[in-house]
Amino acid sequence: MERIKPRTLSGFMELLPPQQVLFDRMVDTLRKTYSLYGFTPLDTPAIEASEVLLAKGGGETEKQIYRFTKGDTDLSLRFDLTVPLAKYVALHSGELTFPFRRFQIGKVYRGERAQRGRFREFYQADIDVIGDGSLDILNEAEIPSIIYKTFTALGLKRFQIRVNNRKVLNGLFDLLGLKEQAGDVMRTIDKLEKIGPEKVKELLVNDFSVPADTADQLLALLSTSDPMGALDQLKGKNELFDQGVEELSTVVNYMSAFGVPADHYQVDLTIARGLDYYTGTVYETTMLDHPEIGSICSGGRYDNLAEYYTNKQLPGVGISIGLTRLFFVLEDQGYLNPDVLTAPADVLILPMTEDLTAAIAFATALREAGIRAQLHGEKKKFKQKLSYADKLSIPFAALLGEDEIAQGKVTVKNLATGEQQTLTSEEAVELVRSTLAARPAACPIQDR
Amino acid sequence: MERIKPRTLSGFMELLPPQQVLFDRMVDTLRKTYSLYGFTPLDTPAIEASEVLLAKGGGETEKQIYRFTKGDTDLSLRFDLTVPLAKYVALHSGELTFPFRRFQIGKVYRGERAQRGRFREFYQADIDVIGDGSLDILNEAEIPSIIYKTFTALGLKRFQIRVNNRKVLNGLFDLLGLKEQAGDVMRTIDKLEKIGPEKVKELLVNDFSVPADTADQLLALLSTSDPMGALDQLKGKNELFDQGVEELSTVVNYMSAFGVPADHYQVDLTIARGLDYYTGTVYETTMLDHPEIGSICSGGRYDNLAEYYTNKQLPGVGISIGLTRLFFVLEDQGYLNPDVLTAPADVLILPMTEDLTAAIAFATALREAGIRAQLHGEKKKFKQKLSYADKLSIPFAALLGEDEIAQGKVTVKNLATGEQQTLTSEEAVELVRSTLAARPAACPIQDR
Repeated sequence: MERIKPRTLSGFMELLPPQQVLFDRMVDTLRKTYSLYGFTPLDTPAIEASEVLLAKGGGETEKQIYRFTKGDTDLSLRFDLTVPLAKYVALHSGELTFPFRRFQIGKVYRGERAQRGRFREFYQADIDVIGDGSLDILNEAEIPSIIYKTFTALGLKRFQIRVNNRKVLNGLFDLLGLKEQAGDVMRTIDKLEKIGPEKVKELLVNDFSVPADTADQLLALLSTSDPMGALDQLKGKNELFDQGVEELSTVVNYMSAFGVPADHYQVDLTIARGLDYYTGTVYETTMLDHPEIGSICSGGRYDNLAEYYTNKQLPGVGISIGLTRLFFVLEDQGYLNPDVLTAPADVLILPMTEDLTAAIAFATALREAGIRAQLHGEKKKFKQKLSYADKLSIPFAALLGEDEIAQGKVTVKNLATGEQQTLTSEEAVELVRSTLAARPAACPIQDR
Repeated sequence: MERIKPRTLSGFMELLPPQQVLFDRMVDTLRKTYSLYGFTPLDTPAIEASEVLLAKGGGETEKQIYRFTKGDTDLSLRFDLTVPLAKYVALHSGELTFPFRRFQIGKVYRGERAQRGRFREFYQADIDVIGDGSLDILNEAEIPSIIYKTFTALGLKRFQIRVNNRKVLNGLFDLLGLKEQAGDVMRTIDKLEKIGPEKVKELLVNDFSVPADTADQLLALLSTSDPMGALDQLKGKNELFDQGVEELSTVVNYMSAFGVPADHYQVDLTIARGLDYYTGTVYETTMLDHPEIGSICSGGRYDNLAEYYTNKQLPGVGISIGLTRLFFVLEDQGYLNPDVLTAPADVLILPMTEDLTAAIAFATALREAGIRAQLHGEKKKFKQKLSYADKLSIPFAALLGEDEIAQGKVTVKNLATGEQQTLTSEEAVELVRSTLAARPAACPIQDR
């Protein structure tokens, strides 16, 4: 037979079992944390009609979209979870209750240039709160605490949530007489961390006709160690600016009430979030020891989720975690916690007699106690079976030979300690249960 | 602005939040049950190189495949989880430990003719055990108990697992002198339930030259109430047949040791499973009250998982549940359990003062106790907020007015009973926790 060389497409993550367990643990942690904040799970198709998905049209992403026809239907794979959410809310608005809080964790597709750590199929983990007509600032203030809780639950310690407000930026540009260049100035500021203040000034002055002293004033403001104080001094001159400062103060003031420690957040006036989409608070989250990775959780407030589909005004606030890339980085940088039990089973049962009834009964007893059990029925040497358990990091082996069966017992071997005991089935189940329960809870990330 | 009419493609399931919660509950139940049997979770890309995915080529499914090019790469969306598993095992065989037991729950794509209850994007929930070179019959014997446990955990009661063995069928055809027509005979038998014995006999005799008395003998055997007894009488004439009967006996004998009640399984010699793929035990599962739906969980033993990719002999056994279709049927037939709490939160917190610090602190206390809490910060009337909780079936409201805050308390209202109490934060958390814990555990399916 002619054989095809098996391969996985470049840019598509495919994990080995232990890594997959860790990835799934991360997903479970996100689901659980998001649920604690009252978000309901959602799932939408990976394929949408191109006309619907690309209603907004144009932009950087369009070239990257997987678009094709089936029969005579023009289809596209979703490239984010926001556009499908907009469609979902517009389509089902009559059946939803607002504010609508949903989380969605799913695969999205972008045909980016293949590059290490860049993926063409990747998971996004999003939450959004959508209001009908209006949405209180409290929702914007709550988001940083969700970010904090989420990463803490994953086990990450050294990260920082950066917040800004688009009204502050836009108002500031008005104040400084930069209204016309606002978009260009914002995009230039966004590069501050990458290219430094001198380069930014050069661009502002030379490319966008910003007066040199205005550029200096702007850069001074952006780099101050007391941004809220500096903003306060500029108040009373521009309505939008004042509103932005007010919102930003509210968000910051509630931060500690929500339990976000002071060293885990920062007002950062340089954050603009490229997209024109955001209109209020914006968020970025960085790993303190790996700033080069960029933001691992971003989002913000927008005024109109679904304007391409409905004349309903649907303001919202949301954040997104690029989970596949984050997982890649964590593995790459040695952050995955080796203490997480990645074995497919807690107990490997090794029957040593022809009749398997006793082994099956013990497997059933374990499973009924919620313990994961695997029967090893292959015709292999005993040593090979133990080595199987070892390779898979299965913590216990249960031996059922003629002696054990005659006594109605089972020998349980703790494969970490080597200790073994011959016990009744009930005792054995209890031993395994209590040993597993005594393992310290392990987060998927280990951050020293 | 020109607006695009939002729509979801026909054949693509998109659920409203309460249904989504039930669907996710089903997925969680499957994950948990599969894990108890020592299966490790796996995730593979939804897109594969067409050359890899279609290595086996041809067949019914090929027309249904979503195939397209991106750049100059010929790509296809997976149409099942078995071919990606074959690729995975062939590609990573050096890094896997055999027997390799994996479960995978993921979306697959088939461009079928749109039809009520037929989906183009649907979840499959698969388990497979893959051996390296050999695989013990114990694995085949364990599968029915996994099917039993899975559906029982979902809440389904009236279902039946049907088992057969392809060696029995193939051996039987040899015995009856039907070796040459074996494939045609098997496909015809497969229609027995649909078209009845007379029609089957007609087809066998007229289209496939089966002698009338042989057709009668075959049909008598297929409809006997004691299939194992009837098979025993034919033993000793054909090696393959004898081996099949032996395997089938083993599977049946272990069934009760594995705890499958006698009324939940049946040897059914008419089950052939269309595909040429299976070589030993085959399984189907039917809902007793809805035989028209066909099998809701099928699979079997195969001798060579990945022959298109590797010369390694990789025998296995697996089953698959078409989860999206099953969910559709369950909802359609009124099987979804109304007692499952589908609310996005357990407690809706209604702050009634300008300062939200107390409300935020109570939300934090609830979340730290693992209770799902939502802060309702919108500027709405109190009655509207209670109606919000009601629409979403949120079980508790927590009221924080000036009086409560002055006393350091919170008023908790049980929205099912109308009862309300003013308590300390700790007492309130405990009241909610204990009330929720006292709710009877609800399976996603309610089967009377």
